[in-house]
Amino acid sequence: MEGNVNLDHLFAVILGGGAGTRLWPLSRELSPKQLLKLFGTDSLIRKTVLRLKKLIPEENVFIVTSERLLDEIRNHLLSEYPPLKKIQYIIEPAARNTGPAVLLAAWELFKKDKDSILGVFPSDHYIENDEALIEAIKVAYEVAQKDYLVTFGLKPLRPETGFGYIELGNSIQNSNAYQARSFVEKPDLKKAKEFVDSGKYFWNSGMFVFKARIILEEGRKFLPKVIEVLGEIDTFSDENKEKISEEAFLSIDPISIDYGIMEKSERVAIIPVDIGWKDVGSLTALEEFYEKDERRNVKIGNIVEVDSEDSIFYSDSRLVAAIGLSDLMVIDTRDATLVCPKERAQEVAKIVAMLKEKDAGEYLAHRHSVRPWGSFVLLEKGDNYQVKLIKVKPGMKLSEQLHNHRSEHWIVVKGTAKVTIGGKEKILHAGESAFIQVSARHRLENPGKIPVLLIEVQSGEYLGEDDIVRFRDEFGRGKD
Amino acid sequence: MEGNVNLDHLFAVILGGGAGTRLWPLSRELSPKQLLKLFGTDSLIRKTVLRLKKLIPEENVFIVTSERLLDEIRNHLLSEYPPLKKIQYIIEPAARNTGPAVLLAAWELFKKDKDSILGVFPSDHYIENDEALIEAIKVAYEVAQKDYLVTFGLKPLRPETGFGYIELGNSIQNSNAYQARSFVEKPDLKKAKEFVDSGKYFWNSGMFVFKARIILEEGRKFLPKVIEVLGEIDTFSDENKEKISEEAFLSIDPISIDYGIMEKSERVAIIPVDIGWKDVGSLTALEEFYEKDERRNVKIGNIVEVDSEDSIFYSDSRLVAAIGLSDLMVIDTRDATLVCPKERAQEVAKIVAMLKEKDAGEYLAHRHSVRPWGSFVLLEKGDNYQVKLIKVKPGMKLSEQLHNHRSEHWIVVKGTAKVTIGGKEKILHAGESAFIQVSARHRLENPGKIPVLLIEVQSGEYLGEDDIVRFRDEFGRGKD
Repeated sequence: MEGNVNLDHLFAVILGGGAGTRLWPLSRELSPKQLLKLFGTDSLIRKTVLRLKKLIPEENVFIVTSERLLDEIRNHLLSEYPPLKKIQYIIEPAARNTGPAVLLAAWELFKKDKDSILGVFPSDHYIENDEALIEAIKVAYEVAQKDYLVTFGLKPLRPETGFGYIELGNSIQNSNAYQARSFVEKPDLKKAKEFVDSGKYFWNSGMFVFKARIILEEGRKFLPKVIEVLGEIDTFSDENKEKISEEAFLSIDPISIDYGIMEKSERVAIIPVDIGWKDVGSLTALEEFYEKDERRNVKIGNIVEVDSEDSIFYSDSRLVAAIGLSDLMVIDTRDATLVCPKERAQEVAKIVAMLKEKDAGEYLAHRHSVRPWGSFVLLEKGDNYQVKLIKVKPGMKLSEQLHNHRSEHWIVVKGTAKVTIGGKEKILHAGESAFIQVSARHRLENPGKIPVLLIEVQSGEYLGEDDIVRFRDEFGRGKD
Repeated sequence: MEGNVNLDHLFAVILGGGAGTRLWPLSRELSPKQLLKLFGTDSLIRKTVLRLKKLIPEENVFIVTSERLLDEIRNHLLSEYPPLKKIQYIIEPAARNTGPAVLLAAWELFKKDKDSILGVFPSDHYIENDEALIEAIKVAYEVAQKDYLVTFGLKPLRPETGFGYIELGNSIQNSNAYQARSFVEKPDLKKAKEFVDSGKYFWNSGMFVFKARIILEEGRKFLPKVIEVLGEIDTFSDENKEKISEEAFLSIDPISIDYGIMEKSERVAIIPVDIGWKDVGSLTALEEFYEKDERRNVKIGNIVEVDSEDSIFYSDSRLVAAIGLSDLMVIDTRDATLVCPKERAQEVAKIVAMLKEKDAGEYLAHRHSVRPWGSFVLLEKGDNYQVKLIKVKPGMKLSEQLHNHRSEHWIVVKGTAKVTIGGKEKILHAGESAFIQVSARHRLENPGKIPVLLIEVQSGEYLGEDDIVRFRDEFGRGKD
């Protein structure tokens, strides 16, 4: 037992920028792995925040992400109970891997508190044992006070060749920590086996605790260009800040914090932990989280199957039927189906690249979207019309808004909605409707105790989500 | 050249009752194989009718089908250009295979014309060379005049073990026809090879030409129970005819016309034909109709694929992505996906049986339906609401109707619609809507030159298609 430590200067930095193409079609560029509720009832990013909140006040939790993902992550964190309203966000001007992202966060937090200590955590890791990690963070905090860059080592479960290993060195006095002797990225199988047998090598968890001051010092030494850019951005006038920051950030070479600093620094400490960590690096991870049938198949959703074995079946809405498959994955979503041998699960990145090349929407987003007030599903899309099924949670209000290019019909099919159009209020029950002309100010609200379901039919020459002018919003958003 | 024969007594009898589970999920119980537009721009049943119309006036073409399929077939034949309005229908009181169906047709046509000669044709065969068949029918007509039961023999393309073979006997004077020496159903591979090598065995095409009088005579000999039932049905009063007919028909054992009569009769003649016939008995038939890529894959629809070979990909609306598949079929429709090795294509019947057992809608019907006035797609279905995308062809009118259990909202998203609700006419353009209260008489019409697209949102406690009271209909229907 460590007892109660004073953690006043501890801030959580969650790396939330990952695009997670490897779980496509379950993940999309705008619904990356960390936002999926595949591995339990909460998403990985919510689990990460809720875990850290046991130790760190919510307002001291910072998520580093891109402008592009900001709305998605914020909507997601607001949309579930409890809504996470106090989280703060640090926007990467451009995606440059974790090295620049971590230094950006350190730079910002150092300005806030010269003694700040950062706990850096990926947003897309699965961790079973929250308490074990929390205890380890407390230890790490103490070690970080001694100016170490602390990392957590996971006991290797198998001779995995896809991960990085850290070798334990001398133990650090008065702690469970060790100096890190060496880093080895993606060893061959023979080496990986030796590492596992030795008991002295641990998987690099990608989680760190260090002083902002120290990581910036090491950054100055090993990634001077990044520190230089951060300094420049800080001196810009506010006016063009966004554009200039992006350009400046783009001049940095992308590099991970591991390659960029941890592997080079003499100050790295490692704390071995046993936290029930699981890899969710590809769709085959579903096998780790769901029960198998007697022929070792995982079946999630509406699956009808004859004589298959060792396969993964997933469907979020439709019927999937299969006959006589072996070692295959069939992943079915509202707008796309993937069929692929399990052993080639990693190659799904090729499909995503092809879709991106063709500018096919299926790489970018799902048909369903989450909002703080509820959710919607795009049912049908034509040249000049769209049909959505919208769900508004009890007591929730959408922003007061107008659209310059589309009219909307709302037909309530369940629950009771309150709509305000051009200043006039109206209550709608199931089977009743309202019409919102182009440019009319309108607002939708669920004053009731059960969810409102409504069908929205949009008509117009331009139907982009960005055709929205907001007047009042409960969630502090500028756009939907 | 046969010259112009007098074909006054020739009637076409098309067997349209087949349920076609073997092409699921492309076929459904209410969208059987013969209605699918998979093999060219027309369905197999339309092709069959259009082919026969070159020889036989449309009003002398009879389709034998079930009560259940009648609407589907009629809607289908009316919905395409040219609409086939004069076709006549003979309803099987119960499905009892082709033996009773053919005798029923012969019975009805004999009453109409004592000298009638029936050309009996399946509705779900693919035939490339219409002219060759037509010439063969003319020859067969002459041979049938001599009281033969004429069948057409297809030159075997391979030693197929799933078909029936007919052995040629002595040739019949003054014709290209032969007496049939023997029938062999589904021979083993060794025998099938001998048959093919001999040049004397032909595949049984399932197409026949014979006098109604003669097939009824043979029926009396080999299927006396069927003839007895037909006689009984004929003497019933009109009042309960439907119910009594069904019961009487159900007392007949199901049997094919081949097993029941052709294989037993001494009067069978065979005319060898070369008509470009293709088997469409399973989904692998797609390989015969679509071009293959350089790795021998067939790809139909929105397919993105890496490194697959010898596979079949079909998608009617969504994206299908595949990596590294071999000899597999992926068949994707709006509500169901099938994944199955090509060599197990026949086993799809097991899936259909499982769905039927569970009463899952996916065995019964597609999400899209054809009507004489256009078509619709079911976009979403909830407990007490449904959303459809409806397409009305230019100049077309739906029936005047009302619903006792649901209200409807219509939102036009393309074209110009005329709606009449409770006697009041209204013109709707894209973006405009109408509301139809429960029990209000209403009618929808497209007075324009381009198709009307509209979204229909139904709300109510009961949403079955049978909640419809029709007042006036352009298509002579009692229900939709």
